[in-house]
Amino acid sequence: MSKFPSLIFGLLFAVSTLTTAAAAQQSNSSKIPPLVIEKQGSFFVGGHDVHSDTLSTLPAYAPTGTVTVDQMYVRYQIPAKAARQSITLIHGCCLTGKTWETTPDGRMGWDEYFVRKGRATYVIDQAARGRSGGNVSSINGVKLGKSPLDQLPVVFEASHEAAWAIFRFGQEYPNVFPGMQFPLEAQGEFWKQMVPDWNSSLPSPNPTVTALSELAQRLDGTVLMSHSQSGIYPFQTAVISTKGIAGIVSIEPGACPAASGNLQPYLKMPILVLFGDYVDQSTRWAPRLKSCREFVEAASKAGGKVELIVLPEIGIRGNSHMLMQDKNSLQIADLLLAWIDKHVK
Amino acid sequence: MSKFPSLIFGLLFAVSTLTTAAAAQQSNSSKIPPLVIEKQGSFFVGGHDVHSDTLSTLPAYAPTGTVTVDQMYVRYQIPAKAARQSITLIHGCCLTGKTWETTPDGRMGWDEYFVRKGRATYVIDQAARGRSGGNVSSINGVKLGKSPLDQLPVVFEASHEAAWAIFRFGQEYPNVFPGMQFPLEAQGEFWKQMVPDWNSSLPSPNPTVTALSELAQRLDGTVLMSHSQSGIYPFQTAVISTKGIAGIVSIEPGACPAASGNLQPYLKMPILVLFGDYVDQSTRWAPRLKSCREFVEAASKAGGKVELIVLPEIGIRGNSHMLMQDKNSLQIADLLLAWIDKHVK
Repeated sequence: MSKFPSLIFGLLFAVSTLTTAAAAQQSNSSKIPPLVIEKQGSFFVGGHDVHSDTLSTLPAYAPTGTVTVDQMYVRYQIPAKAARQSITLIHGCCLTGKTWETTPDGRMGWDEYFVRKGRATYVIDQAARGRSGGNVSSINGVKLGKSPLDQLPVVFEASHEAAWAIFRFGQEYPNVFPGMQFPLEAQGEFWKQMVPDWNSSLPSPNPTVTALSELAQRLDGTVLMSHSQSGIYPFQTAVISTKGIAGIVSIEPGACPAASGNLQPYLKMPILVLFGDYVDQSTRWAPRLKSCREFVEAASKAGGKVELIVLPEIGIRGNSHMLMQDKNSLQIADLLLAWIDKHVK
Repeated sequence: MSKFPSLIFGLLFAVSTLTTAAAAQQSNSSKIPPLVIEKQGSFFVGGHDVHSDTLSTLPAYAPTGTVTVDQMYVRYQIPAKAARQSITLIHGCCLTGKTWETTPDGRMGWDEYFVRKGRATYVIDQAARGRSGGNVSSINGVKLGKSPLDQLPVVFEASHEAAWAIFRFGQEYPNVFPGMQFPLEAQGEFWKQMVPDWNSSLPSPNPTVTALSELAQRLDGTVLMSHSQSGIYPFQTAVISTKGIAGIVSIEPGACPAASGNLQPYLKMPILVLFGDYVDQSTRWAPRLKSCREFVEAASKAGGKVELIVLPEIGIRGNSHMLMQDKNSLQIADLLLAWIDKHVK
């Protein structure tokens, strides 16, 4: 065992102040009030049945039958006197809904913090990841000699070394950007959050996007808050229908909509695109920020309420790509809540 | 979309009485008190780093590097004034921790019910399932031509038709046992809970068992409550160390320890083995119940506090294998809580 789980367990039973975000970040020694939940639970959205003849290679389980695929798991918590619009938290590449829960170094995640601030939260696992089951029939098809090798699924894992640069902990592994705020002392716990990514094997449009549209319509007013690989999903959801999308907060999106494309769907709700620090030093992220700037400019010009915040430009420095887990994560949560309170009606 | 998600959403926002389990099962019309949580969050136990040269076949992600595997995801909720011993909920085959959350027809899961009854709950996702990441290097090894076909992982999915008989909804799909209590009207939501099962590709001992031992020792007093394929895990955990295991509740285990084996580890804590209805009508389950009867008898004779309850033998009828989701699920939860209160000190 590494030292990190001990740290986590120590913090699990510690209590911390939460009268203000700043106090919560600084102190673990005083009393935090209990969390009062009006209702919590989980359910699925989307999914459909498929037939397969290659479900299993084991004698105990029949190879032939029906399975349900492409569903999206959702876990929610609703506080007493919740604001009308909830927040739907959509994780990024190679991760699950765990992204938004307890940070690697044991601090409160945004899933709980937003609830404490009066917002119902809906945390999803993308289709074919986490608690949203995938389809492994194609693996067994090849294993049983029924399909050619090229029918194996496209699935990958991001290595620690690759993720280090992608998540902007530093220019390259194991160098660290000066003043970087991700809790690297607990990186062992963070690597455990990573899961294989099956997205390239999924149908188009991605079932998560279709499910998000259904979720938004049923919630009848939710802020879609996405991150990284899923950054574009709220925009794609808006193209299906703008119904139920009370606002979009896209955190460090892998892509923004094209500035030259049809901008109509994005003029119907307030939109915030957020980036952290060191973006200009990253060959992966710098062009993405540039393209998002162009989108925001074009959509604003077309009459949209669209805003771009680059944290160091407003004096908040040191944020990695995983800013919901950075040491100042609750400061950023407060910033987003203030934006939502102001713009989402 | 099927009709079930609509049902779920209707129930999501309904409020239901919970003064007694019976009332909660019968009424959705009156007020349920808020859930008061002292602390909640999530973390990982176990896991170790491995090197791989076949993490990816995509140009955007390097094939070579380090990943962390075999960790176990844990989500916990601690009520105010919690009893000393928590309950750790361990799901079975082809499922995740979702097993214990909201039922397919939208009723409260045991994860929340136990918290409302004063017990901290720890809900895990088994290694390589749900939010506990797996290792897909072997798939890419074959895809890239670096490994032979037989290196593909052993992974399977249980079809609806196969699961129907295994979960004892009926003798065989789509027949239903008379009086069976699983909410079949919401079966669409249940099938969405199922995920591929990678257990046969994992090292031995199963990393979930090792992680459970570490969790129990750190919690310093938890009841390991397992189900089906994981039914044997608390016993295997006790073989590693009895430390921290305050009790074992094994629900419809796929296997009990051998009656003729070393029974010493099972004499150190109270043990309950629980079975539902229709077992004698199942060629899969009847021999398992018989073998568990033999174990319980042998362990009792050796001085253990070991008990077997077969629900119809105490007048509770109609329970399927998924009894934590059956219509009388809270009645069974009350039964288990009463047993824990009486025997776990």
